[in-house]
Amino acid sequence: MEVIEILRQVSKQVFDNVKNLSITEYTTGDFGRGAGGDISQNIDIIAEKTVLDYLKQTNFNCIVLGEECGRVEINDNPKGYVIMDAIDGTSNAVNGIPFFCCSLAFATDNKLSSITDAVVTNLSNGEQYWASKGKGAFLNETKIHVQNKETVHKIVGVNTSGASPELLEKLQTIFERHSPTRHFGANALEMAFLARGSIDVFIDLRGKIRIQDMAAGYLLIKEA
Amino acid sequence: MEVIEILRQVSKQVFDNVKNLSITEYTTGDFGRGAGGDISQNIDIIAEKTVLDYLKQTNFNCIVLGEECGRVEINDNPKGYVIMDAIDGTSNAVNGIPFFCCSLAFATDNKLSSITDAVVTNLSNGEQYWASKGKGAFLNETKIHVQNKETVHKIVGVNTSGASPELLEKLQTIFERHSPTRHFGANALEMAFLARGSIDVFIDLRGKIRIQDMAAGYLLIKEA
Repeated sequence: MEVIEILRQVSKQVFDNVKNLSITEYTTGDFGRGAGGDISQNIDIIAEKTVLDYLKQTNFNCIVLGEECGRVEINDNPKGYVIMDAIDGTSNAVNGIPFFCCSLAFATDNKLSSITDAVVTNLSNGEQYWASKGKGAFLNETKIHVQNKETVHKIVGVNTSGASPELLEKLQTIFERHSPTRHFGANALEMAFLARGSIDVFIDLRGKIRIQDMAAGYLLIKEA
Repeated sequence: MEVIEILRQVSKQVFDNVKNLSITEYTTGDFGRGAGGDISQNIDIIAEKTVLDYLKQTNFNCIVLGEECGRVEINDNPKGYVIMDAIDGTSNAVNGIPFFCCSLAFATDNKLSSITDAVVTNLSNGEQYWASKGKGAFLNETKIHVQNKETVHKIVGVNTSGASPELLEKLQTIFERHSPTRHFGANALEMAFLARGSIDVFIDLRGKIRIQDMAAGYLLIKEA
């Protein structure tokens, strides 16, 4: 099985395994400290376990770099890295806000340029954004492209969580001149929206972005 | 028929009338200037026309205050105002971002305190948030409440579109200390999320908010 097929299948499994979990909370509206804490753990752990179990079952030769689990060697003859943010946008997920995703990328080496395959699944509706190096980017089975027209409603995504006064000063011109701005709270999905042309620009200058947050989105945008 | 029933029914009709329109664009991914402009007009006009037609058909005695249509007297014996933002979050809608809503409120007089009924429908999934004065707030048929627990993932909604340097300076402390912040781009739906406890705080200090943007959300939050 091709690498991209493995990533797409396991990403679909994550969607299947967490959708009832988040939907239950979503409809009951009970998001207390205990509950929030528990769900947060649950949803992150269930999602990562889904990926790790699947990769072990299919005996996929790789090292996983996960947000929660850290570095996990699936077996001792790795042909590359699976870079995993099993739940990107956990805060949204546990608060019942339908904007969170599963982000998976495969890289043959430890450089952005060695990423060959990427899948971002919107976990609130199952839509799958995916790309293989040199073959374009897709939303489910439809080819997608970044925005190349002058749109009427140009949308600028800006990550402002925990932004310092210095950073806000840098961003001032953007807020003032480029309306509308947005901050949805799941970097990988926002990058997928950029790849699809729904967002025109995406900016994160906080210096906090991790490889797990951007590996898949990077290839999606490059291929779109 | 009760006022709240009229608002809920017409809001449902707006959902039915625009869902295919936005879904079509959403799936084809063709959002150019011409297209964007046309769709924007289409979706706003179709939604407002749906409301105006329904109110005329049911001979509901009111004056409509609409975002696009301005002041429209349905007949000459008005018993109050229907405050309408038929599509809140148009930029999201025309870009295929599933975060936009229809916001309707009824007020007996021209004060916030005279708002008696409110409905906000999430137009990406049909969920209906509604409230009548003194009777609580609901998501579909389930009672909702603002967050009253200390949540782990406290979410602060901040509207930063077109924010001036002075405003950003005021907001600095919030960005720095209260992570995660969010800006989804449809005020009325963000206020509904606050009423449901999904967002803990919502801030819009731009001085640009109009009565159409907040009338329904105001009552939802007050009743939740």
